[in-house]
Amino acid sequence: MANILRDTPREINIQTKINPYAAGSVIVSFGNTKVHVTATVEESVPPWMRDSKKGWVTAEYAMLPSSTHTRSRRERKGISGRSQEIQRLIGRSLRAAIDLEKLGERTITIDCDVLVADGGTRTTSISGAYVALALAIRKLQSEGKISKSPLTHQIAAISVGVTRDGAIISDLNYDEDSSCETDMNIVMTKSGEFVEVQGTAEGKPFSREEFNALIECAEKSLKIIFEKQDAALRGN
Amino acid sequence: MANILRDTPREINIQTKINPYAAGSVIVSFGNTKVHVTATVEESVPPWMRDSKKGWVTAEYAMLPSSTHTRSRRERKGISGRSQEIQRLIGRSLRAAIDLEKLGERTITIDCDVLVADGGTRTTSISGAYVALALAIRKLQSEGKISKSPLTHQIAAISVGVTRDGAIISDLNYDEDSSCETDMNIVMTKSGEFVEVQGTAEGKPFSREEFNALIECAEKSLKIIFEKQDAALRGN
Amino acid sequence: MANILRDTPREINIQTKINPYAAGSVIVSFGNTKVHVTATVEESVPPWMRDSKKGWVTAEYAMLPSSTHTRSRRERKGISGRSQEIQRLIGRSLRAAIDLEKLGERTITIDCDVLVADGGTRTTSISGAYVALALAIRKLQSEGKISKSPLTHQIAAISVGVTRDGAIISDLNYDEDSSCETDMNIVMTKSGEFVEVQGTAEGKPFSREEFNALIECAEKSLKIIFEKQDAALRGN
Amino acid sequence: MANILRDTPREINIQTKINPYAAGSVIVSFGNTKVHVTATVEESVPPWMRDSKKGWVTAEYAMLPSSTHTRSRRERKGISGRSQEIQRLIGRSLRAAIDLEKLGERTITIDCDVLVADGGTRTTSISGAYVALALAIRKLQSEGKISKSPLTHQIAAISVGVTRDGAIISDLNYDEDSSCETDMNIVMTKSGEFVEVQGTAEGKPFSREEFNALIECAEKSLKIIFEKQDAALRGN
Amino acid sequence: MANILRDTPREINIQTKINPYAAGSVIVSFGNTKVHVTATVEESVPPWMRDSKKGWVTAEYAMLPSSTHTRSRRERKGISGRSQEIQRLIGRSLRAAIDLEKLGERTITIDCDVLVADGGTRTTSISGAYVALALAIRKLQSEGKISKSPLTHQIAAISVGVTRDGAIISDLNYDEDSSCETDMNIVMTKSGEFVEVQGTAEGKPFSREEFNALIECAEKSLKIIFEKQDAALRGN
Amino acid sequence: MANILRDTPREINIQTKINPYAAGSVIVSFGNTKVHVTATVEESVPPWMRDSKKGWVTAEYAMLPSSTHTRSRRERKGISGRSQEIQRLIGRSLRAAIDLEKLGERTITIDCDVLVADGGTRTTSISGAYVALALAIRKLQSEGKISKSPLTHQIAAISVGVTRDGAIISDLNYDEDSSCETDMNIVMTKSGEFVEVQGTAEGKPFSREEFNALIECAEKSLKIIFEKQDAALRGN
Repeated sequence: MANILRDTPREINIQTKINPYAAGSVIVSFGNTKVHVTATVEESVPPWMRDSKKGWVTAEYAMLPSSTHTRSRRERKGISGRSQEIQRLIGRSLRAAIDLEKLGERTITIDCDVLVADGGTRTTSISGAYVALALAIRKLQSEGKISKSPLTHQIAAISVGVTRDGAIISDLNYDEDSSCETDMNIVMTKSGEFVEVQGTAEGKPFSREEFNALIECAEKSLKIIFEKQDAALRGN
Repeated sequence: MANILRDTPREINIQTKINPYAAGSVIVSFGNTKVHVTATVEESVPPWMRDSKKGWVTAEYAMLPSSTHTRSRRERKGISGRSQEIQRLIGRSLRAAIDLEKLGERTITIDCDVLVADGGTRTTSISGAYVALALAIRKLQSEGKISKSPLTHQIAAISVGVTRDGAIISDLNYDEDSSCETDMNIVMTKSGEFVEVQGTAEGKPFSREEFNALIECAEKSLKIIFEKQDAALRGN
Repeated sequence: MANILRDTPREINIQTKINPYAAGSVIVSFGNTKVHVTATVEESVPPWMRDSKKGWVTAEYAMLPSSTHTRSRRERKGISGRSQEIQRLIGRSLRAAIDLEKLGERTITIDCDVLVADGGTRTTSISGAYVALALAIRKLQSEGKISKSPLTHQIAAISVGVTRDGAIISDLNYDEDSSCETDMNIVMTKSGEFVEVQGTAEGKPFSREEFNALIECAEKSLKIIFEKQDAALRGN
Repeated sequence: MANILRDTPREINIQTKINPYAAGSVIVSFGNTKVHVTATVEESVPPWMRDSKKGWVTAEYAMLPSSTHTRSRRERKGISGRSQEIQRLIGRSLRAAIDLEKLGERTITIDCDVLVADGGTRTTSISGAYVALALAIRKLQSEGKISKSPLTHQIAAISVGVTRDGAIISDLNYDEDSSCETDMNIVMTKSGEFVEVQGTAEGKPFSREEFNALIECAEKSLKIIFEKQDAALRGN
Repeated sequence: MANILRDTPREINIQTKINPYAAGSVIVSFGNTKVHVTATVEESVPPWMRDSKKGWVTAEYAMLPSSTHTRSRRERKGISGRSQEIQRLIGRSLRAAIDLEKLGERTITIDCDVLVADGGTRTTSISGAYVALALAIRKLQSEGKISKSPLTHQIAAISVGVTRDGAIISDLNYDEDSSCETDMNIVMTKSGEFVEVQGTAEGKPFSREEFNALIECAEKSLKIIFEKQDAALRGN
Repeated sequence: MANILRDTPREINIQTKINPYAAGSVIVSFGNTKVHVTATVEESVPPWMRDSKKGWVTAEYAMLPSSTHTRSRRERKGISGRSQEIQRLIGRSLRAAIDLEKLGERTITIDCDVLVADGGTRTTSISGAYVALALAIRKLQSEGKISKSPLTHQIAAISVGVTRDGAIISDLNYDEDSSCETDMNIVMTKSGEFVEVQGTAEGKPFSREEFNALIECAEKSLKIIFEKQDAALRGN
């Protein structure tokens, strides 16, 4: 049986009402990792979606240069592969939580700007982005632009890993992440179904048994995150 | 129980000895999908690896403009997010198959150029890339540059999916892929361990039961692919 | 005589200790305008400064896409002329506040990321950047890397304008700025000397008399800003 | 009292009728500094100005690689911050000289290409650009496209500085500019009002007294430049 | 009299039916040089051709990184001058072979991707591109989209050179090309007229006599290439 | 026999001593076409030439936006294929005129900036560039940096064409060039040998007889150009 080192996320904080112009905005932190997330609404869709009668949800992800231990370079001459991969993941995950037809012909853009990076920036972004998206939907409803919420699922994300000693650990910080053999990011719905599973053997390949243990550990952590999301949305 | 629509890959063909200049080269096809893969060796490592006493394996992935049903644009003004994501996946998977210290201070670059795209280009690329890599290692050995093979695992990849009717299907072609609710790419070792698992709910989220069925289906298909790789390497 | 509409800045708030990795960090707000400023230290100088025995202070400025009333585009394919002009101004102003020889062969990078933009983002950035720079210097001193502070001046910045009715107004918000005939940004030292004066007639040209009134109005506002900087640095 | 080293510009030469295709064209020199300026007219406005019933005046600025003492690099991979700042200044200054509504829905583009750079290239460009603009307007009138001139002001520009010894000097050449503590560019109307004032303390900050002396010195020099512009336009 | 070292091309091979999606596709080889050529048809023309009632033929040329003796860099950050020059030559040559009015308002794009480069990649591309173009035209005819072929000429290309000893040689491979004083590429019609002549003295200038000998040598080689094209088109 | 419409170049003017900083500088005009050419010397060679003990001659070509009948776009986001092709031609032609070993380890950069474009800008550039190069060499000799001139050939260039009526014409202006079936650029040495021949059938292919007539026409025109170059160099 796999040894479980930690199956709960780091301390979670979700502040709302950050930006007066955005339809929804939060600063979400998991431990030291802190991400500024906004949802803005435009009453149009990208050119390739015209005539589809559907709306669109997309995401952008960036790290402030000072968010990392040593200052990183601003992505001004083209976005890095890593950033692009992460923002595609965030957008895809959020689109799995919403009925684009019911959203109507409008675009919601989720901007995730990492203020402090200490591991798990993509999962922290997704968990906060759901709240910003829900706030934006609520605002559209209160403005009478849509009547019934197009949200179909509540989603959240967590990272889990296998350490060199074969132990399972949840919500890895930067140091823990650097020393893991396997790193897995899981996006789930509150009802317990999978939206994304991305597991990577950084060091040695992982077994089916470890795989199962990772998923159970993630499920446990996600329950806590869903509660934090609910509290943030209630308090708003 | 999940219904299994197809648990074997499409027809596989691996031609070797394609390019006289490359250390290893194959044209690999899974059904209509056809990828030109080469492995070239340089006797140096990237700047950030100097003094590490290790070698490096990296990959580039591109589609010929004419590989798709309607001609696509050449990526000359920057690589797309999709291409970057795929080539990062290919490189990562191959590095899980090799001991970089034993490789010595040299770089092996795997170029995957898609000639015809009919679904599964990334998994076809990985399955062919392992053969090209193994051929390049064999050449380094025959030249006396390394004595013992640094390869630690034989790897291959397959895509599996869940159709709208909830059936499980292996090695999806373009049409099948477009109509799937869930799409999963799995990279495994011949010994049955996981190197990468990337599952995405394009439509509705997938259950734990479907997840397990997908993995079993993948394992079955991969057995056939490993045999084809072996035959290609024997025949060489 | 010019009519003075307002000669004090909007409400100022300077929070410190924002980022655990940066040598100095503040979130500074003037009214609704809010800027995240960090100072990071690298123990090296740009290539063209080698052998100069001097240090370097440089700045980067960017607006988060959601900082503006309607979401603006992320500057990922090259920095805009406006951003470049502003970051050059910030860097130049800070270098006027420091003795680069006494700083020693190290680089301090000031990152100004606008969280909310409601006019005066460049002057808010400069006024906050001085505090972040002073905190970074204090940290270098506490670490024993430099003994005497290389800071030669305390600097701050303010925008002033002439309205369509010919009245003088300080620290313009977005709406006020849009309706001004003349817009002037002034960077001064606490001892009352000029570091930068940038006055632009957006509409009709301005007279010598208006020019003088603008400068006096700026001087009054800057006194209040210097006090806020002092309080923030004392409280730290 | 500030010591005045020189309060007149270098020798000025304005040749007209340079380019047979441009609506207005001059080669303007201040001392060794020589700039090729053309004004071209297009009977349309930029997309964002449609429906405004106004015209537009914009500028581009570039230095030939051979214009500097040691050959500089051609700006082919993106315009530098310095060039962008200068061309924005030129465009803004010229728009302050013209009534865009009376210009009608057309665009005048001013191209300033520096043939030889020996200090003051931006002020030389602006002083020459006014003449090219006035020639283009005259051409539009002679073609019957506009009846009354939309020009509202005659403008010109000069640079002034404070030397290390605290002396005031006008129209600095490259060597003088390099050795100044303060550098100020002033754009004025013939009637004595300000269009732009950009003063920068490169070394130590400047006092209010120096500020006043710089402006008086500039006013004196500008009188001579306005006369040269008049002569060039008369001779045409 | 010039000494003729070789006046026939290397061994030529033209395979057709390579790509199921392209209107015409060939892999063409001259000696070791091997190029993948496709012709794809779009039922529209570039924006600048609208209202011309004409069609358009254009080409793109690229080398796979592994095509050269030592791996070359992928042109992802902008196309090189060399590639652009070659693809302009290919497009121009093909347009000389077709009546664009008779083609109708559609675009044929020829993609030439070099699989193996051993000299003469541009002439090999052109010679193969004619076949791909002819196949695409035949397909348009069989689909009833055009009735009469718009092809006006059959074209092919060859490189010829002058060695250091003054001998004339046809279809130079990489080593021969590197050691030639003069290098000439000639595109001709089957009826013996010139479409393009590009002669360059890499080393010493060439005389009128050598010029004539080069052209006669090219004419001889081209006869063989036209036969190979005919055979490939007959066999299809 | 081909009908000769004009076998002399348009009026030629070569002004020297244009730029005080450049080693050689001319403004050269052929009819309305006018090009600003400078030669600058750097006492180093590009990285890939280190250890070769040779010097390097390279060229850059650009058109001022106002040089064309309707203003063209400044090439700031990457050089066009056309410009790159032309500057490669200019550089190659000049290198055929000089012994790079005798030049010594230094780089001469030829900048050709087109002030007015009325056909033949590339041939005008080359004919002027030879003069600028010769002046730069003379300066190197007068400074004692090289003793014997490394120039091996005097070169010049001309364009010739075949009109729709089949007549031969030399040094085509913009209108003539637009209406020609064939366009040929020829670079020759004063001793009558070829450096570059680039002939293109824009409309219908050209015959061997036309080819010969074009070359004879070019030879006649070039004699006049060589005389003008000699006069410019004598007068200097």
